[in-house]
Parts: sequence; C-alpha cells; structure tokens
Amino acid sequence: MKQFLSDNAARVHPAVWDAMRAADAPQSPYDGDGVSQRMDEAFGELFGQPCTALWVATGTAANCLALSTMVQPHGGVVCHREAHIEMDEGGAPGFYLHGAKLLLAEGESAKLTPDTIRAAIDPIRDDVHQVQPHAISITQASEYGCVYRPAELAAIGALARERGLGLHMDGARFANAAAFLGCSAAEAVGPADALSFGFVKNGGMTAEAIIFFDQALADVARYRRKRAGHLQSKGRFLAAQLLAMVEGDVWLGNARSANDAAQAIASCAADRLIHAVEANELFVRCSASERSALRAQGFDFYDWGSDAARFVTAWNTTAEDAQALGRAVAAL
Amino acid sequence: MKQFLSDNAARVHPAVWDAMRAADAPQSPYDGDGVSQRMDEAFGELFGQPCTALWVATGTAANCLALSTMVQPHGGVVCHREAHIEMDEGGAPGFYLHGAKLLLAEGESAKLTPDTIRAAIDPIRDDVHQVQPHAISITQASEYGCVYRPAELAAIGALARERGLGLHMDGARFANAAAFLGCSAAEAVGPADALSFGFVKNGGMTAEAIIFFDQALADVARYRRKRAGHLQSKGRFLAAQLLAMVEGDVWLGNARSANDAAQAIASCAADRLIHAVEANELFVRCSASERSALRAQGFDFYDWGSDAARFVTAWNTTAEDAQALGRAVAAL
Amino acid sequence: MKQFLSDNAARVHPAVWDAMRAADAPQSPYDGDGVSQRMDEAFGELFGQPCTALWVATGTAANCLALSTMVQPHGGVVCHREAHIEMDEGGAPGFYLHGAKLLLAEGESAKLTPDTIRAAIDPIRDDVHQVQPHAISITQASEYGCVYRPAELAAIGALARERGLGLHMDGARFANAAAFLGCSAAEAVGPADALSFGFVKNGGMTAEAIIFFDQALADVARYRRKRAGHLQSKGRFLAAQLLAMVEGDVWLGNARSANDAAQAIASCAADRLIHAVEANELFVRCSASERSALRAQGFDFYDWGSDAARFVTAWNTTAEDAQALGRAVAAL
Amino acid sequence: MKQFLSDNAARVHPAVWDAMRAADAPQSPYDGDGVSQRMDEAFGELFGQPCTALWVATGTAANCLALSTMVQPHGGVVCHREAHIEMDEGGAPGFYLHGAKLLLAEGESAKLTPDTIRAAIDPIRDDVHQVQPHAISITQASEYGCVYRPAELAAIGALARERGLGLHMDGARFANAAAFLGCSAAEAVGPADALSFGFVKNGGMTAEAIIFFDQALADVARYRRKRAGHLQSKGRFLAAQLLAMVEGDVWLGNARSANDAAQAIASCAADRLIHAVEANELFVRCSASERSALRAQGFDFYDWGSDAARFVTAWNTTAEDAQALGRAVAAL
Repeated sequence: MKQFLSDNAARVHPAVWDAMRAADAPQSPYDGDGVSQRMDEAFGELFGQPCTALWVATGTAANCLALSTMVQPHGGVVCHREAHIEMDEGGAPGFYLHGAKLLLAEGESAKLTPDTIRAAIDPIRDDVHQVQPHAISITQASEYGCVYRPAELAAIGALARERGLGLHMDGARFANAAAFLGCSAAEAVGPADALSFGFVKNGGMTAEAIIFFDQALADVARYRRKRAGHLQSKGRFLAAQLLAMVEGDVWLGNARSANDAAQAIASCAADRLIHAVEANELFVRCSASERSALRAQGFDFYDWGSDAARFVTAWNTTAEDAQALGRAVAAL
Repeated sequence: MKQFLSDNAARVHPAVWDAMRAADAPQSPYDGDGVSQRMDEAFGELFGQPCTALWVATGTAANCLALSTMVQPHGGVVCHREAHIEMDEGGAPGFYLHGAKLLLAEGESAKLTPDTIRAAIDPIRDDVHQVQPHAISITQASEYGCVYRPAELAAIGALARERGLGLHMDGARFANAAAFLGCSAAEAVGPADALSFGFVKNGGMTAEAIIFFDQALADVARYRRKRAGHLQSKGRFLAAQLLAMVEGDVWLGNARSANDAAQAIASCAADRLIHAVEANELFVRCSASERSALRAQGFDFYDWGSDAARFVTAWNTTAEDAQALGRAVAAL
Repeated sequence: MKQFLSDNAARVHPAVWDAMRAADAPQSPYDGDGVSQRMDEAFGELFGQPCTALWVATGTAANCLALSTMVQPHGGVVCHREAHIEMDEGGAPGFYLHGAKLLLAEGESAKLTPDTIRAAIDPIRDDVHQVQPHAISITQASEYGCVYRPAELAAIGALARERGLGLHMDGARFANAAAFLGCSAAEAVGPADALSFGFVKNGGMTAEAIIFFDQALADVARYRRKRAGHLQSKGRFLAAQLLAMVEGDVWLGNARSANDAAQAIASCAADRLIHAVEANELFVRCSASERSALRAQGFDFYDWGSDAARFVTAWNTTAEDAQALGRAVAAL
Repeated sequence: MKQFLSDNAARVHPAVWDAMRAADAPQSPYDGDGVSQRMDEAFGELFGQPCTALWVATGTAANCLALSTMVQPHGGVVCHREAHIEMDEGGAPGFYLHGAKLLLAEGESAKLTPDTIRAAIDPIRDDVHQVQPHAISITQASEYGCVYRPAELAAIGALARERGLGLHMDGARFANAAAFLGCSAAEAVGPADALSFGFVKNGGMTAEAIIFFDQALADVARYRRKRAGHLQSKGRFLAAQLLAMVEGDVWLGNARSANDAAQAIASCAADRLIHAVEANELFVRCSASERSALRAQGFDFYDWGSDAARFVTAWNTTAEDAQALGRAVAAL
C-alpha cells in the first residue's frame, strides 16, 4: 500500500527515537526536567527572539490553549470557515474558551485576508448583544496546503493590532510552510502572538509545541495546560522529541522531503489541482471511478467530496511512491 | 542519587519500549489503528467482563473525563478532602465538569467510608440552593498509599446505588493496590462504573487508561476526549504501551516490585510510619535534621509538611536501594 | 412620537399591574409562594396537557435554560442562521450550554424546514471530530415575523424524533403566532419539548415563562435556573404577571391587537414587504430618504440594513397610529 | 402570623411602587432608557466617587457577575466557609466563573480577617498543580449579621492589594451594615473593587445593583450580564426601583427600621444570642420545644440547626411585632 492518507499515519523519525531513548533516565517529573528546561532556549534561537515553548500532546490542545490566553469567554475568534478549529476539533474551542464563539470568515484556499476579516467583523455591532472579536486565528499552511507570504502575515498583523485583537497561528504544517517559503522561522510566523507548532505530522510521535512570543500569555497557558490534563508527568519524553526535531533542523529537512514529494506529484497533475500545491497536500479533481482505479493500484488516500481526492505526502514518502502516484494520476 | 521522589520520575519498562517500536509502522490515525482496537478485548479479559478502554495522556485527564460522563455541570462529586482531584489537578475538575463542585468528605488515610460519605452529603438540603451529589470518586490506593478491601468497595458501591450516584475510581496506583490485595483486577476495582487505570507511574511512558464498565458512559467519553484535545493522532503509541503492560501482566509484576521495596523500607521504620504501608508510598515521621541527614546520604525524596517525609518506590527501585534507605531510617 | 421601534418598549398591561399589586403580601420566597405554585396548573389548562412552567426574567434566559436541558456540552443545536440565539444573545448559548455549538441552517423568512435541517446536519460525519446535533431550536413567530403552521411543526417534530434530537421553540412572539393561526396554544407549539413563552413584548413587565412538556427536562431546569442566578427571591411578582396574562386570555387579546395593527399597516405597503406579515413585525423596503421622511412625520423605528425598515407593533399600538403609518408608507 | 422568616418575604416599599409606575412609559429597551442612564450618577453621589452601577435581578447574579470580572477560570476566590456563594447559590460561582474554585477560609461570625485569609492561601504552593487565588469575597453584613468595621475592611483591602487580588463585597444586607455603622456608604464599602448592593431584602421588588469602582471591570460585566440573560428588556423598571431607594435615602431608612426591630428583640434575648446582633438577623439558642412554643404564639421563623432559631426583621417589621417576639423569647 502506498500511503497518502495522512501525514499523521507516517512513521516516527529516527532522531526522535534516539532522543526519547536518551531521555529515559530518572528525572524531575512534569516539566521540571532538564530536557523541558532547554526548550525556551532552543526555540528562542530558532525564532531569533525570546519565547516560551510548552509541549502538549495534540494540535487541538495547542490551538485551544493558545487561544484561551487571548480570548475571554464572552469574546470570539475570527477564523476561516474551513479552519480546523471550526471543522475538525470536536468543539474543543467551545470547551477551552468556555463558550467563546468562532466568527467565520471567507478566503481563497482557506486563507484569510484583511478584507475577509473585516467583512466578518465590521458588521458586528459594538454592543453587548453581539459577540465581539478578541482574536484572529490563521493556519500556516492553510487547510488546503496554501502558504501565507510574509507580507500577507504583516497585513493581517497590522489589522489585529489596529483592532486590539490577538493573533494566533495554527501551524500544524508550519514546517511545510517555512520550507516552501525558504525563509526563516521568524518570517514564516510573522507577527503572531502565539504559534501552534506541529511536529507529529512531520516525524514526531506525541509532541507538539505552543510557542508564545508574549510572556504574559505563556504565564496563563501554564495554568491552563495543567488544568486541561495536558501537563504530562514524564514530560521529558515530549521535550526530547521537540528538541530532536529542532536542534538539528530535522523539522525543516523532513518538511522539505514531504514538500518535494508533493511537488513531484503536482507536476504530473497540474490541470487537476483545485488549490496551488505549496506544502504537502494535494487536492485533485477526479471522479469516483478514477479514485477506484488509483486505489486498485495500491494508493491509499481520502475522498474529498464527490469529485476530488486528497493526497498527503509525509517526511518519509519515497520518491518512487510519489512518482508512481504522479504517473498514475497523469494516466487517468 | 537514590531516587524516592516519585514513581513519575522512574524509567520506562523495556517491554513498553519494545511495543512502541513495534507500533512504528504506518497505521490509521487517532484510535483507528489495530493496536488501539485491541484494547477493549485485552482489558475485558483482565477484568473478566466487557468494558471499553480509552487511552489518554495523563491521570488528570483520565479522572476528569471519567467524571464528566457521570456528573452534570450543576452537580457535585463526593471525594476525600485530600484527593488528588481536589488538591493537585490545578482545578481540572472544575474545567472538565463545567463548574460542578467537589464535595469534600473525611476518612482515615484518605479513604472514604459509607459513614464519611453520608456525613458529607446528608446535610445537603434537597433543594436547588445547594449543589446535589451526582457521583463519588475514591482513590485506589489512596493518596496515603492505603488500599480499599473488596468489602469496603462493595459497601461504598451499595451506597452509590442507593443514592443514584456514579462511582469513579482514581487508580493512579491501582496496580499497587491489586498487587497488595493479591486478588483479581475485578475484585480490586469492585463496583466502580469507571476506573482511571494508571500506568505512567508503573513503568509506562505517556499512556493511562480509562476503563468504562458502562458502555453508555464510554460513548460520551469518546466525544469528550476529542473535545479536550486528548485524542492523539498517533494513538497507536499509547495503545502499545498499555497492551505491553497488560498482556504480559507486566503491570502486576512491576507493582509487586515497587510494593516489595516499600515493605523492605517499612519493616525498618515501623515506629515512624504515619499510615499503613500497603502500596508503594511511605509517610515517615522525621525531623528536618533527620531529613538532611538522609539527603546527605544520597536519598532523594519530598518533605511532607514540617515533620515528615514521603518516600515513593518504583517498579525499578532496587532491593539494595530500598534496604539502604531502610537502614538509614532505622539508624536515625 | 409614534412608537414602532420595538414591542419591548411598550407599556405594561393594566391587568399585570393589578396582579402585581395583589401579590404584594408576605409570602414564601423564591417560587414557594402561592402564585408561583399555580403556574403549572394554569399553563397545563392553556396547553391541554400537563406541563411544568418556570418563570425567568428574560427570553435569553428562557431559551438557554430550556436548551441546557437537551444539549450536552459536547453537542450542538440546529438553528436558523438568523435566529435570535445566534445573532442577538451575546453568546449566551455558549455560556449556558458550556461551549456547545450552534449549527446554522437556512430557510425562507428565518423558518427552518426538514429539508434545510437535513442539509445542515447530514454532512456532519458521525465521528468525534465533528460536533453532533443534540437539539433543534425554532422560533415561533420567526425573526421575520413568519409563523410555522401546525403541519410544518409536525414535520420538524417527526425529524427531531427520528434523529433523537430535542425540539425547542423560541416563542418570544408565540402569542402573536397563536393569534395569527387562530388555533389552540397546543397546536401552535406542536411537538416541541420546551417552549420559551414570551410575555414581556406582549404587555408583561419582567417575566417570561419556560414551559416544559417533559418533566425530566424541567427537573434539570430548576437547578440550572438557580445556578444561573435566575431564581428571584420575590418570584411571586413574576408569577403574578404570567397568571394575569394567561388566566384571562390577556396574552391572546394583546397579540391580536398587535397583529391587527400590523395588518393595517401591511395592507398599505403590500408591494414593499420583504416578508409576509403574519405577526406584529413588518420589514419594509424603503430608502434612506424615505426613512428620513417617515421619521420627520414622527414615526420611530429601526433601520434594517441600508434599504429597509423594521416596524413593530405592540399590544397598545393604536389604530390611529397604525393607519397613520400605513398612509405614510403608501404615500412615499 | 408574625413574620420573621426572611426579609425576602417582606412587602415592597411604596416609593418603589411609585417609581415603577412612573417608569411605565414607552422607553428605549434594555438599559438605554433614561432611568437606567441616571444610575451611575445617583450611585456616584451616594459613594462620593465615580462608579458604574448595573441592575440585575438577584444577589446571586450580582455576586457572580462581579466576581467574573476579577477571576480567571483557572483561578480561585477566597471566601468564608459559610459564605452565601459557597453554601446557597446552587453552584452559581462554578457556572459564572467557568469552573474557578472557592477557597474556603475561617472566621468568627462568618467574617474573614487578614489572618484567616492568609491561613487559607499561604499553604497554596505557587505552582500549576494548585488553584491560585485571584480574588477575595467578603459579606457585609456577614451571613450571621455581623458587620465589618472600616478598619477591618482596610486591612483586608491592604492584603488584597499586596497579593494582587480583587476584592468583592457581597452586600445583600449592605444597607443594614451601613445603618449599623452610622458611617457613609463609602466607608461601609471600604476598598472593595465591586459591591453587590442588595435592595430586594430591603423593600425592593426585583432589582439589585452591582457597583463597580473600577471602570475596566464594569466594561467586562456589561457583556457578561447580557450573556447570562440578565439584561432585561424593560430594564427601566429595575432602575426605577433602585433610584427610588437611593435618591431619597429610603435604603437607609428601611435598614434602620429593620435594625431597630432586631435590637428590640436582642435586648430581650441577650443571654441566648449566638452572634452579636449588628444588622437585622438574630441567631438565638432555643430548644425544639421552645421553638414550638414560639410558633404556637404565631411567630414564623427558620430553625437553625437543632438548637437554635434564626429571626430576620424587615423594613416593615412593626415595633409591636418585635417587642412581642422579644417578650416571648424572654419568657421562654
């Protein structure tokens, strides 16, 4: 079976295994261990600025904990109508934000723009009968694998500041976005106040990071993490995963591999692509019978509605598999 | 350093490592993988009855998710005044139960009895001005390392049924309790509707189990787990840990080792013990200068108030270390 | 000033004043007084079936308390995209339902149909990643003053039962709907499990009713009402208002007056109406300059977007004022 | 029947009725009316400093809305073990504060002191495993009818500032406390950030006030009030009650009457008093048979445990009734 179902399904990178093994010594519990204590510095170097880095087990927890530091229970979060927090997190934002509301905005390829954000919030009357926005959440790369350019991030950041809104970035595939942009991590995150930095889809096992560029938000998040049951007692095994990915730039290498595989497929399917391929996801128009044909050739993937398929490459997708899929799509 | 600080700080058991390695193949994400799918059966065999077993990352999440299926937001949970959910979970019950209240009861060595439960709930007027109990939560072994006998569990279960209350067991050290009792897992859990079955303190890495003996509760818990950001995308690595511990009775062997080490120490410190030693924790009267003397000999442990120390043994505490500590305490 | 701004702004009916005065004697506090105790019977007679009637201060509280008995925190409520609970209650459903989600559906004139409900919920995958519907909420009369016929209610009720969903009716203007239908209260409420029965817009002062046709839901609501700070200590003054409105059919007479006034205006503005006029609201196309002209003649009302106006009649709108507004609109 | 059951059960003061009648003219809904708009000024004059005054229907709503502006969901509120928010509000603080915790402190006659507050919070470790205090709530007069002197308030306020905690005053019987102290309203409220100022027990009908001395807190409270369903659409009828009570010092006159009646009783029962009588409540030792004897003489009151009774006087308790009760108690 050639696996294009999800980067969640991929294997764990050897460097991660090695670091976890190395962490298997008696240590202070929770995040008092030496590995967890190195995280702020490691991520601070990566982003070129002081930051606080907290490990958590899932992207959902990362997104919601980050937002819980910016949004009061009576407020709202502007996000894309197809954002993961709206569509696929089982109502977690409602739980973590104590009933705060997601304020849905439009945008091509699941990317927001200052204009679409304004279109969502300007009609909200500034009175107590309507939920007021407290933050904006954007996804880098977007749900459709498209990447915000630094200038786009700057424009959204300017709007956020102008309106007094927090800015959160869901970076479940932040590595793929940074790899695509070819820029620094700092440029890829732009003016966000907090980043959910994804590792599990990129070769990690059970650890994601929340990066706070505002210490006051991080101070709240520490309490909220424990309160959400996300302060693991052997946290050193999560920290070890993250440091292994960051300290040797494994995160970037893995993302490049996945992106390259996606490009190899895309180059064979250009006329069928629904969205630009900028990260490691491809949304490809194809009929039910074409999908059956591909599956008969051993390709595993999700249907995307009735007339499309979603293919996701991973850090360990082989060039052979990618090329094989590309040829198979081209031959449809 | 001889480590008696916390069983949280101990190493991961080799069988757990092996199982995690074996799970490192592409698989369906979340809990759709083959390993996760085997959990209900494996735990069903262990408990000799059908059950639903869900993995989560922490005991706090296990406790609170279990309780969230039994307690409405306007209700309360009877627990011991020194229960972990009251003292050490950073307000997680308030979060997961949406503001439900902990109703505090008394009891020797942090164990509840039907009498102390009644003393807590009988004064509650049955009107809307006071929070009504919806469930009872007990801890096996208790916060002070003491174990409920099957007859004690049955009596609490009878009271719970009589009052229409759910019954939850916090089993962070359930393995140690079962090992002490020398009975089946079923007898050690008694009539509980749900069990937080701890593994991390007993040789696991990042996985705990919630065992539901009532399918209807489990159905709710699945949604609540996702909503709490605890449905990990590579869940197979959690399931693998649990199966490794359960299928070869590693859980029981590890607990016996820890308990034995505790007994070895206890036998040297009988006149200083504050609570009976029935699991792997010892609460030992000793002055500040005595504690200093022990630390000077290389023993690591927590102070317990101003005139006591807590020592916790783990699955991998060596007989040498235990005896050394015993001798050192005896020599004080 | 001729007042068509809101029925909220109207005066209190004399029968309400009289009943409040009569209630001003020492009485048991909360809802233990004789007046509150008569409510179940009075509403039971009105609806021709046993029910439980609770007073609360606002329609928002009534809606949210009713829904809180049907919807678990991890579930969702299907409602119209322009429903009051979505648009105008300041996020109260998120608060009262502990983060449950509003699942937005379409429909002409803000009325749902089985088809639009299915269109909203059928795409929801039955898995934990998406919020599942637990209830449906409809508004009688709708936000645009349109009324569900008994057959329409029956069809929605059948769908609710088929899918295992609760059915709530927001009846802020239920009286106007019943008056329009010329049917019994029972027929106007149809198969709803709970009704928010509005009185404040219809001549009351500070009391609305929640009517539960399912005793189990009412039992939960009593606790939730206290918990929400809505159990007033001199509740007899709320009960008195409701009984005054119900026992002499004041509710129906008042609604008929308001509806008649609306029809008088509508008959002069037929070509400008955006929605059918079935209750006491009119949505009338007119330009900014036309609105200025009307205001210059002493009519008070809200703009409705840039090219329409909303006029609301009340129980005490005089025939003269209604005719004057009709003539003024016709003359535009 | 001579009524000493509760000041909740008393009649409404004529000035309140008159003001409500006068408010019965068409007005802007919610709190946009002229009466509501006068509240800040009226209370500002009373307290001799700028403040924001919001009406709500109940003391529970007032207390919880006030606290919701000072306490984050992961924090806690220090209050007396027998405070109303802990004992008698049906879990409302858990609801309004989104699961924040009440941290219980001791104190004679249900009054806190800096020492008892420190005893409650100093043992809380400053780490994420324990809920940290965010605010203190005190009750003026206390649950046992005892009054904080200005110097006591100042000392608690100093502690609150030192620890960075908000300070809330539950003033369900604030009027009685101020009348007892014979000082200004400002001195009776001391350094509190927000006051729940009770009127319903003191001759009002359905309106209590929340007074914010910090504008930023009030800004949050406005949104929270709407979100809690406590923004009534005919709010002018609540504002009218409050203004009637405040503008002619009716609040103070009524409280003096109630206090005088309490003193008249107390002077006959000095040797039986459990708490000093400083407001309008008396807690009197008497046996079951003595209580029966009093009831046989036509006195209505609550038992207070098995060997005491609670008597509450109201603004309209007659001197005759008070003296009769005093004589009857003396004669026991």
